[in-house]
Amino acid sequence: MTELAQAIRSGDRRALARAISLVESNSPLAPALLADLWPFTASARVIGLTGAPGVGKSTLVDRLARRYAEQGQRVGVLAIDPSSPFSGGALLGDRIRMDDPDPRVFIRSLATRGHLGGVNRALGGAIALMAGAGYGLVLVETVGAGQSEVEIMSHADLTVVVLMPGVGDDVQANKAGILEIGDLFVVNKADLPGSDLTVRQIRSMLGLLDKRLAQVPITKTVATEGVGIDALIQALDGFGRSPEELERQAARRRQQADRRLREALAELAVEEIRAGAGDDRWQEAITRIAARETDPERAARALLRPITKEA
Amino acid sequence: MTELAQAIRSGDRRALARAISLVESNSPLAPALLADLWPFTASARVIGLTGAPGVGKSTLVDRLARRYAEQGQRVGVLAIDPSSPFSGGALLGDRIRMDDPDPRVFIRSLATRGHLGGVNRALGGAIALMAGAGYGLVLVETVGAGQSEVEIMSHADLTVVVLMPGVGDDVQANKAGILEIGDLFVVNKADLPGSDLTVRQIRSMLGLLDKRLAQVPITKTVATEGVGIDALIQALDGFGRSPEELERQAARRRQQADRRLREALAELAVEEIRAGAGDDRWQEAITRIAARETDPERAARALLRPITKEA
Repeated sequence: MTELAQAIRSGDRRALARAISLVESNSPLAPALLADLWPFTASARVIGLTGAPGVGKSTLVDRLARRYAEQGQRVGVLAIDPSSPFSGGALLGDRIRMDDPDPRVFIRSLATRGHLGGVNRALGGAIALMAGAGYGLVLVETVGAGQSEVEIMSHADLTVVVLMPGVGDDVQANKAGILEIGDLFVVNKADLPGSDLTVRQIRSMLGLLDKRLAQVPITKTVATEGVGIDALIQALDGFGRSPEELERQAARRRQQADRRLREALAELAVEEIRAGAGDDRWQEAITRIAARETDPERAARALLRPITKEA
Repeated sequence: MTELAQAIRSGDRRALARAISLVESNSPLAPALLADLWPFTASARVIGLTGAPGVGKSTLVDRLARRYAEQGQRVGVLAIDPSSPFSGGALLGDRIRMDDPDPRVFIRSLATRGHLGGVNRALGGAIALMAGAGYGLVLVETVGAGQSEVEIMSHADLTVVVLMPGVGDDVQANKAGILEIGDLFVVNKADLPGSDLTVRQIRSMLGLLDKRLAQVPITKTVATEGVGIDALIQALDGFGRSPEELERQAARRRQQADRRLREALAELAVEEIRAGAGDDRWQEAITRIAARETDPERAARALLRPITKEA
């Protein structure tokens, strides 16, 4: 085991922070570190929370983390920011507020900007590191739009979809996309008008999607006031006990493994092929694609050919 | 040139719709079709519009498409939905409203659910097909969160970031991320209070990011009323004339080509490696990852080794 991995195992928070940065920047030191800590992820519970901007995810995550910590659990929080330069910086009032010195809670935000599969790999790595550091529960917060919900699915044992009452057309469209991935739904800001209607709408949309989803828990919270947090925790802790839920989780673990294997392969293979092609050939391919003399697919096949022919 | 490519070139809308479905489903017929039509993308102008849910992107895109069509242009619209089963379906009132029979406008929505790089490839393909069909202007609408802004960057000549007055913390965080990619900003719903403040905030955040961004155009619109659309079109059509803008565009085209080459390579390489490994070996790797006996990176290296050793 590397020295850094040992420091993480012994509970050194600065070592953990440094290791996450290594994973985030795709350092050459990362693979050995992750290999050391990977086994510990088997025992960590990873809960993903996703939802549109403005539904109050950060506050909800903050409340959950504190309540779990009060129960004696060590909780890691990973917030995935759809932004790069300011991540965790001055503009993110939420993050700063959350980042208090409670030793049972470790909060970190990951920037989503990056190359192919980079975010997902960083997220997987950060979860492994937190698990290795003894955070038995990891909460992952992400914006539920675009590819994000797929990303969170690749890592969470349980996905919570956070909504709020009275949303517009765009958000309704998002809802349709995230309905499928929710193991549990929360209607936050439930003190706003229309929260019961929203609960009924979710229930009816779930029913349309799949009859077996009729039992999916839907809870109401007012995170800013701490209302509904205990009921949510009860629902979270009760999840995964029925045979259907267990079966769903086992199938999901395999799907996650398949996706993560593909991601790791893609990144390794592209680097390998790029190095094999050499800089001149790579730049020439780019020039030809940019000038529309060839298309990316054809250029890729030409670069791939020398490797696969010999295989 | 394939028969389908010829039908698309001759302006057959049903052929175009069918071709986009082929690209979306990653049909084996797609590569030849795209190779035929790729050269035509050099002359098409691709404008990306991105922003958080609820800012009114769809309405704005709708207005822009109509106005350009009134000027005699043929306009393709690609809406990227962060949802799968309902895409373009009953829940998306917006889409249906937009999908009128104006022969100068062609609207299509692409589902974002899918495997590695699939969306991006489908988007690139759909743009090429629309360009090949003679739509000289293609508007791409996407939700500006998570990876989506990166996706749109890979394809647009010009990216418009759509915001609205009076947004919450979460959206502010999003803003930070999308500031960098905006060639032009629109504050929509400008009849709401605080629109001038939002303009000033964007201006000041851009200034903090990079002094050269001080000149980036920011326009105000009320898309539902058609207010500000002409000024926006003027700003769009005036973009890319200054030496700085031209230089930025040339650099971006190369970046886009690099990214798309990597995406195409990743997808091809993973398929190749998976096929080479055989189903038993693949399933075994997945079982071991799911049981946390190995990590994705290590499993990927083991699968890659036989191929790269021989190369």
